[in-house]
Amino acid sequence: MALIVHKYGGTSMGSAERIRNVAKRVAKWARAGHQMVVVPSAMSGETNRLLGLAKELSPAVGSPELNRELDMIAATGEQVSVGLLAIALQAEGVEAVSYTGWQVPVATDSSFTKARIESIDDTRVRADLAAGKVVVIAGFQGVDEDKNITTLGRGGSDTSAVAIAAALKAAECLIYTDVDGVYTTDPRIVPEARRLHTISFEEMLEMASLGSKILQIRSVEFAGKYRVPLRVLSSFTPWDISIEEEAKSGTLISFEEDEKMEQAVVSGIAFNRDEAKVTLLGVPDKPGIAFQILGPVADANIDIDVIIQNVSHDGKTDFSFTVHRNDYARTMELLEKTVGPATQAAKVVGDARICKVSIVGIGMRSHVGVASKMFRALSEEGINIQMISTSEIKTSVVIDEKYMELAVRALHRAFELEQIPT
Amino acid sequence: MALIVHKYGGTSMGSAERIRNVAKRVAKWARAGHQMVVVPSAMSGETNRLLGLAKELSPAVGSPELNRELDMIAATGEQVSVGLLAIALQAEGVEAVSYTGWQVPVATDSSFTKARIESIDDTRVRADLAAGKVVVIAGFQGVDEDKNITTLGRGGSDTSAVAIAAALKAAECLIYTDVDGVYTTDPRIVPEARRLHTISFEEMLEMASLGSKILQIRSVEFAGKYRVPLRVLSSFTPWDISIEEEAKSGTLISFEEDEKMEQAVVSGIAFNRDEAKVTLLGVPDKPGIAFQILGPVADANIDIDVIIQNVSHDGKTDFSFTVHRNDYARTMELLEKTVGPATQAAKVVGDARICKVSIVGIGMRSHVGVASKMFRALSEEGINIQMISTSEIKTSVVIDEKYMELAVRALHRAFELEQIPT
Repeated sequence: MALIVHKYGGTSMGSAERIRNVAKRVAKWARAGHQMVVVPSAMSGETNRLLGLAKELSPAVGSPELNRELDMIAATGEQVSVGLLAIALQAEGVEAVSYTGWQVPVATDSSFTKARIESIDDTRVRADLAAGKVVVIAGFQGVDEDKNITTLGRGGSDTSAVAIAAALKAAECLIYTDVDGVYTTDPRIVPEARRLHTISFEEMLEMASLGSKILQIRSVEFAGKYRVPLRVLSSFTPWDISIEEEAKSGTLISFEEDEKMEQAVVSGIAFNRDEAKVTLLGVPDKPGIAFQILGPVADANIDIDVIIQNVSHDGKTDFSFTVHRNDYARTMELLEKTVGPATQAAKVVGDARICKVSIVGIGMRSHVGVASKMFRALSEEGINIQMISTSEIKTSVVIDEKYMELAVRALHRAFELEQIPT
Repeated sequence: MALIVHKYGGTSMGSAERIRNVAKRVAKWARAGHQMVVVPSAMSGETNRLLGLAKELSPAVGSPELNRELDMIAATGEQVSVGLLAIALQAEGVEAVSYTGWQVPVATDSSFTKARIESIDDTRVRADLAAGKVVVIAGFQGVDEDKNITTLGRGGSDTSAVAIAAALKAAECLIYTDVDGVYTTDPRIVPEARRLHTISFEEMLEMASLGSKILQIRSVEFAGKYRVPLRVLSSFTPWDISIEEEAKSGTLISFEEDEKMEQAVVSGIAFNRDEAKVTLLGVPDKPGIAFQILGPVADANIDIDVIIQNVSHDGKTDFSFTVHRNDYARTMELLEKTVGPATQAAKVVGDARICKVSIVGIGMRSHVGVASKMFRALSEEGINIQMISTSEIKTSVVIDEKYMELAVRALHRAFELEQIPT
């Protein structure tokens, strides 16, 4: 008997039939005695349909001055979802009431299309829960202090659900999605990949930012900050499996570093094929050179990921970094025309055919030799490492993209991730 | 340079192309120096699509306990429209801002799906108008004192527009629709039917309630109560005709009874084929008999229109009334099984093949002989009058439905409605 938050994605809400299944699942939890709050996304395709209409009307859609109106339009997708889900719940014999973001209210700043939640008033929701109602709250949206509707950006419903769970001090926030949990790596690449029963927030942050696109990264940060236990699980399991079975399925993203977590040194292998590498060869090694190179790149709104500066040689050094592959051409142009000449670089070279592979594990903090084990595994496969970047709980290497699958499989095997840790 | 309210129906908002035309028309008025408030309906088909989804989820849609959720869903149609129209206006180079009902706020009671407007706060709208912005407000919706979203019922956007015009003391409220005004009668029946340049509120009320479905009747009552000049005009005229030309098109529904209005005795011919007639023959003529008959009918939620009780004869009388044709079978059953026996009626008879034809005109107040001219015209065509009902500004007759077109044409001719009054 606990307060539980469920979040359902757009695919789970994609048709009347699917909404009915969501309602049956929530009703099962409610009948088991739990206080239920449900945060659905817009029906799949709806947000794109609405934005498509807006784009037909103005070439300026995307520029800040239209963002308030875009949020006005986009927020209706989730508003429809909550109304429909409340109706479906009542058809299942469960009392239910729906709320938009402003009705709760979910207070945000005024950054239209990418607003940040500032506070959530739980008074009304708590009263409904106490009265035995299931409360259905529109995800993705909020309201600023001038009563303007705001949205949190793509995937914002995850953040809404976690923020609501935090405000209500929910026992758990269950994110129902189209995958059944977080895996040691992508099963399409490594068939032996194993679903993790538990993963720490820190690991999840690394896995998410490295391309395992399961949860919006902001929602994981939020969950970590407010210590909300978060579970990723599938909305495609039959709705009528037992609560116990369901409560143990998926992957729990936990803030408790229990002993079990310590057992596995590496939890998973993440990878990212969306990067490109650029290098300035032979730049003078003097103070301020990094800023001189990266400042103009940042000014051009290009996100930088891995940065490597080699030790200098004859007063010259080589400086490399990676950017998103979409920004590759723009970055090369910037370096060749502006930054290269300004820094007296001997040469600018680039390569868009690279990828990044990372081992992630909270156990790396207290275990030595993890990185060297990684390098040995790659070397045994004859894979050349172009760049290395490390943090407390992950080690990333940049390699030729043609070796990506090979590298992921070799590392998965080397760290015995197919085995349940004992 | 005046404060003007425009209202656009769902057909006018039916596609990106049509919304662009609405924006061009509004921009023209704004550029002419007018302060503009625009109230659009949902894109045509949208409200039905949303309600269709709700009906798929619950057989109970339509029962009061789901109405709050239906309003939550239905209100999104207009919310999308205001956002899109604001974007289209900005693409035309006109500053614009959109509001939902709750943002204004448009305060209503809590009668979900058929709420009534209680007050409108004009502070925010006035500030925007003063700043030179076009204000786009969602029609059809409001908010109750508990911050629940309400809707005003079908056609409620007309009422929203008039209420907003009243609150802002607008110079005129222009209702853009798919007809170009109010006609002396339906031009499909009488090709000579003439568009009225002006009609009084009282006449419009009678014309609307009698089946000329141009404006929601509640909006006309509202306009009359708050003395808002209302104009019905076509949204299909080219958007770039001159303001002067447009301001004179359509039909003005006026509260000023100027001399011009006095000139025409009869303004129009209304008709209604949706009625059925029932008669209790030979009921004892005693006090309370009308209530004894009509009480149970009203209790069964059957609306009654024309009621006739003939003078009594040997202590017995015949009692007739008309109901909507959809209620005919139910009414007959009620009379035959319950009311007839209870009132000791000799017989119950009914006829669903009738129609009602009415002449409407504010001039009837001060002119005698109008009704008799009507009866003579019908008699000359050999049309038998089954029931007669009169009010200050209209006279209605119930006749065999097969004579409806003939009657309408004869009356249109008899009162010379094809002529512009001199």
